[in-house]
Amino acid sequence: MTRLLTMIRIGLLGCGTVGGGVVQLLRTNAASLEARMGAPFELVRVLVLDPSVVTLKELDRSCLTTDAERVIGDPSIDVVIEVMGGVDPTRDYVGRAIAAGKQVVTANKALLARHGAELLDRAHEHGVDMAFEAAVGGGIPIIRVVRDALAGDTISSLSGIVNGTSNYILSRMQADGMPFEAALKEAKEKGYAEANPTLDVGGGDAAHKLVVLAMLAFGARLDGVSILTEGIDAVEPVDHSFADRFGFVVKLLAIAKEHGKKLELRVHPTLVDKDAPLAGVHGVLNAIAIEGRALGPCFLSGRGAGAHPTAVSVVGDLVDVAIAKRNGTAGQRTRAIRLAKRELLPAEDIESRYYFRFSVFDRPGVLAKITGALGQRGVSIEQMVQQGRGSGDVPVDVVILTHESKEADVQAALDVIGKSDFVAKPPRMIRVHG
Amino acid sequence: MTRLLTMIRIGLLGCGTVGGGVVQLLRTNAASLEARMGAPFELVRVLVLDPSVVTLKELDRSCLTTDAERVIGDPSIDVVIEVMGGVDPTRDYVGRAIAAGKQVVTANKALLARHGAELLDRAHEHGVDMAFEAAVGGGIPIIRVVRDALAGDTISSLSGIVNGTSNYILSRMQADGMPFEAALKEAKEKGYAEANPTLDVGGGDAAHKLVVLAMLAFGARLDGVSILTEGIDAVEPVDHSFADRFGFVVKLLAIAKEHGKKLELRVHPTLVDKDAPLAGVHGVLNAIAIEGRALGPCFLSGRGAGAHPTAVSVVGDLVDVAIAKRNGTAGQRTRAIRLAKRELLPAEDIESRYYFRFSVFDRPGVLAKITGALGQRGVSIEQMVQQGRGSGDVPVDVVILTHESKEADVQAALDVIGKSDFVAKPPRMIRVHG
Repeated sequence: MTRLLTMIRIGLLGCGTVGGGVVQLLRTNAASLEARMGAPFELVRVLVLDPSVVTLKELDRSCLTTDAERVIGDPSIDVVIEVMGGVDPTRDYVGRAIAAGKQVVTANKALLARHGAELLDRAHEHGVDMAFEAAVGGGIPIIRVVRDALAGDTISSLSGIVNGTSNYILSRMQADGMPFEAALKEAKEKGYAEANPTLDVGGGDAAHKLVVLAMLAFGARLDGVSILTEGIDAVEPVDHSFADRFGFVVKLLAIAKEHGKKLELRVHPTLVDKDAPLAGVHGVLNAIAIEGRALGPCFLSGRGAGAHPTAVSVVGDLVDVAIAKRNGTAGQRTRAIRLAKRELLPAEDIESRYYFRFSVFDRPGVLAKITGALGQRGVSIEQMVQQGRGSGDVPVDVVILTHESKEADVQAALDVIGKSDFVAKPPRMIRVHG
Repeated sequence: MTRLLTMIRIGLLGCGTVGGGVVQLLRTNAASLEARMGAPFELVRVLVLDPSVVTLKELDRSCLTTDAERVIGDPSIDVVIEVMGGVDPTRDYVGRAIAAGKQVVTANKALLARHGAELLDRAHEHGVDMAFEAAVGGGIPIIRVVRDALAGDTISSLSGIVNGTSNYILSRMQADGMPFEAALKEAKEKGYAEANPTLDVGGGDAAHKLVVLAMLAFGARLDGVSILTEGIDAVEPVDHSFADRFGFVVKLLAIAKEHGKKLELRVHPTLVDKDAPLAGVHGVLNAIAIEGRALGPCFLSGRGAGAHPTAVSVVGDLVDVAIAKRNGTAGQRTRAIRLAKRELLPAEDIESRYYFRFSVFDRPGVLAKITGALGQRGVSIEQMVQQGRGSGDVPVDVVILTHESKEADVQAALDVIGKSDFVAKPPRMIRVHG
């Protein structure tokens, strides 16, 4: 341990946006970090694919290597920070770093969603810690808040806006009535969306983060679980204006709830009450609303991405795990996380209020057929609006808000209605929050 | 240390609302707390003024004592939790508990505002920790977020709604145009305001919390410092409606900013932009907006008071300091807090936008005199509204929003205008946020 008191030696896997931010923060905050730690941090080795493209002036180029073994296999390295992303080869690298007895910090939500429990088991076995604040919500200390809330409380539900790209697109559509494609194009131009935005707008990224959050909040073993995931690409400007008319905004929410013994996990576009804190989260911001049984509601928002915010979380974790190593208490935070298998609520058992938009030909009896099909399945209507009058073959929008209903009944009713001759397009359904 | 591994012994000073909540949480979460801790918590002694009034069924009455020494002086007690409130005798009790080598948890903002640095010095000297999450924002982990943000970042400013009573009153005035007295009466009926609400509506409670936050956020030694503090009692319904008309809401904000080497600390009613997250915080909720240099904006809200939310923070702190004691690392979190004297920005040097409401007799040349007096002091006007027309001796409201101005100039101009024969009442001034 004594060596540790004189210096904390760090190995970095990956040096892209976040990695670069970490390198810069370690440099700019060196003094305060050393004061807090009682010892300096030294970045000894950085794994990159191609050293020639790394231009960070804060970085001593002699640290650069293309050989992972020179990071993971170096016995003098105390903490390994993984900011490469992806599941392969990171699963192998992080696993080996743990097996080598190193403290680990990772920002990799995809890796944790697929292999988080496996890696935590491994960390448990080798008496080390794996910290992952940066995997969810960038610089927002969501993981800490969830973990700390659990010291004296239990969480009954959480819902969050955890994908900045989708939230930026939805915010632009809502504010300016932009179509999805135009908003996506703008997000790409501003660097808020990647060339291939599928993981963001398709909900996959939010689903990864939800799995990580739920693992921690409910002590659930969820590696590679598949959950209800719908993206925002089918949301049209008209849905935003109807939502507005009913007092809602459309947000991509990641929702986790305890349902007795079962766990309900879902990611989809959601109608959120205008007065709810989540409704006020615009642009690339992220946010999470936690419901603690004793704490009550707790809401947190901030920058969910970006080099520096995310690097702040990485460095915060770095300090925690380094202090644990210095104190000889490595592995303690791992042991505090107890994971058990939890059954997931089947999608058909979800209960929610629903928004439907039917594009129908305005013929006599159409409304009766729609309401009939819903009524037959016990889906009761709270509000119905028909937008204008269509002539024979020009369809009109009929929008319906339901009372609390069961997903299975809703799907069955929509199936029937969707097959009818009076509908011009497949029905549009959006779940309502709360 | 070995005894600690078998049990954590707790002494409780005070058993009112929060104390009762702590007793209940320790009971209801005993299993998960023991799992997290690796050892059970045992509440061994509880100091109260009058045992006969304590009716908590979760409490073994044999724990009750009216003799502080039986808590502080008991060498078998590991952690002392102070939830009595007030500065005397708590300053003495907490000081003695620290000197006796006990880990301390306190929810006492008044004590910390006056003697926080002194007690932290003492904790440093005796190698123990003093945790105080519950002193600010009830169950919202504001202290943790501020502390953790500092691991890899520095805070440039923070502003918060930290008094639920005032926020409830302002929310009711805003929503229903209620006068202050009526809203205060309602708050008392609902148990949101104490019989003597001076500390809440006068801003004193918020000032205490601001000092505690600033001490931590800026590493400043602020014991007993006096800061600009204005309450909400002078805010009238008409101010809410003018604020609304200009796109603001009125909130009691606690504001702390770094101003070069100096620190700007103030508590007062503030016009907050309707779109700002703080504007959406209604009723008894608390919230804080932090601006980190790397993190950017981070916003946190939740229940700022109440037995259970506050007790959740106390128990979270309890777990932290108990783990430190078990690990033999007590005093480490104290050593991580470094406090230095910081000069405060004099009130007259504050720069802000301002809202003025003048109740004037509608005579020719009055507006010229007002704008002249402001212009002479270099206070430039952004918007001006005259509400209707008054006849000779019925005054009318003239409301002005200024550009960024200096407090000293504003005060001087208001002084001149206030003395003029055309004003019916002293001018009303509210600072504008951001």
